[in-house]
Amino acid sequence: MTGRNTADIPASTIERLPQYLRCLLELQSMGVPLVKSDRLAGLCGSNAAQVRKDFSYLGELGTRGIGYEVSALIEHISELLGVKERRRVAIVGYGKLGSALHGYAGFPERGFEVVALFDVDPAKVGCTFDGIRVFHVDEAPRVVNELGIDIAIIATPARVAQLAADAVVEGGVKAILNLAPTRLVVPEEVDVRQVCLSTDLQILSFRIAQQEGSR
Amino acid sequence: MTGRNTADIPASTIERLPQYLRCLLELQSMGVPLVKSDRLAGLCGSNAAQVRKDFSYLGELGTRGIGYEVSALIEHISELLGVKERRRVAIVGYGKLGSALHGYAGFPERGFEVVALFDVDPAKVGCTFDGIRVFHVDEAPRVVNELGIDIAIIATPARVAQLAADAVVEGGVKAILNLAPTRLVVPEEVDVRQVCLSTDLQILSFRIAQQEGSR
Repeated sequence: MTGRNTADIPASTIERLPQYLRCLLELQSMGVPLVKSDRLAGLCGSNAAQVRKDFSYLGELGTRGIGYEVSALIEHISELLGVKERRRVAIVGYGKLGSALHGYAGFPERGFEVVALFDVDPAKVGCTFDGIRVFHVDEAPRVVNELGIDIAIIATPARVAQLAADAVVEGGVKAILNLAPTRLVVPEEVDVRQVCLSTDLQILSFRIAQQEGSR
Repeated sequence: MTGRNTADIPASTIERLPQYLRCLLELQSMGVPLVKSDRLAGLCGSNAAQVRKDFSYLGELGTRGIGYEVSALIEHISELLGVKERRRVAIVGYGKLGSALHGYAGFPERGFEVVALFDVDPAKVGCTFDGIRVFHVDEAPRVVNELGIDIAIIATPARVAQLAADAVVEGGVKAILNLAPTRLVVPEEVDVRQVCLSTDLQILSFRIAQQEGSR
């Protein structure tokens, strides 16, 4: 770390860091050692000024006229995002959505390791899928604690999502990614991100309606 | 409509409308005829001033001291979001994720009807699931057009997502919800929303790292 306080980094910059990291990893895999802000901006769908501004919060990383060192940037952003060491993740609700997420290649690539699955279906509890065991949700307080799980992804039906959240919070998760279409109530220190695909569709629908109206 | 120009509504207000709509539908299902801004704010995790400000863009909808009429608000927001008439949706990529989305109860509730599925797997093409047929992606330009599909949800592997997008764009979709972890290139008039769960996890991870650092 540069010694800068990460609390000074604007939320909008943080929201863009994962995208920068993805593009930088792509460049690294192509053997590119240095990248200028305009090229990186092109890859990320941003602009060069934005890239330079965002990176200015990360410390002295670039050299004028030469660009940024790809590997140094990857190192730095990974450290900031807390994904240098792998984060242990649990998936709660192992239906179609939960199992689709378990197979999602993006997670291990980005530093997330699924280490436990939870469900209530007796046909699944005790089974292993791709080497990962399904526990009963009632065991979540113990298992989350023992395996040091930081993040739970909730992929249950909406009506049981709060129970699932309560169980993993009791086990000590620090954050929840909620895919169930319902609002969760959790202690203040637990961070929740809500993924709501219906909301995304409605926002798209609004924009279509706007376009239709303007014709 | 009130005759106000929807282009004047701030993007941040639009992002909150689906959430208001969800809460209002819950209130309606409980038989609640009127709601005050503070109660609605509590349900939506917002504050009363924000609710009043957002609704001020929608016209004269509330009465001071009495509140908002739930059914009128639902009608109004649904119309704004373009979901009064059902929007026709296709799912492209019918693997685990695609089939999980097909079964997602939130879509029909919110005014979205899945009318076609696309895949390239010969074992799936020609089959019907819950009454909806799987077409080969090559047929997308024709099928999207004939069925009047407005929105495509892309749930393919990243490496074929662009091909999938090209096919549905050729058929005339107006918007794409992209769940494949890759950036799509589409004509300007097509609206794309990117859902990236790895990014959500990384943002959560950043906040955990911040908390750990501050201890």
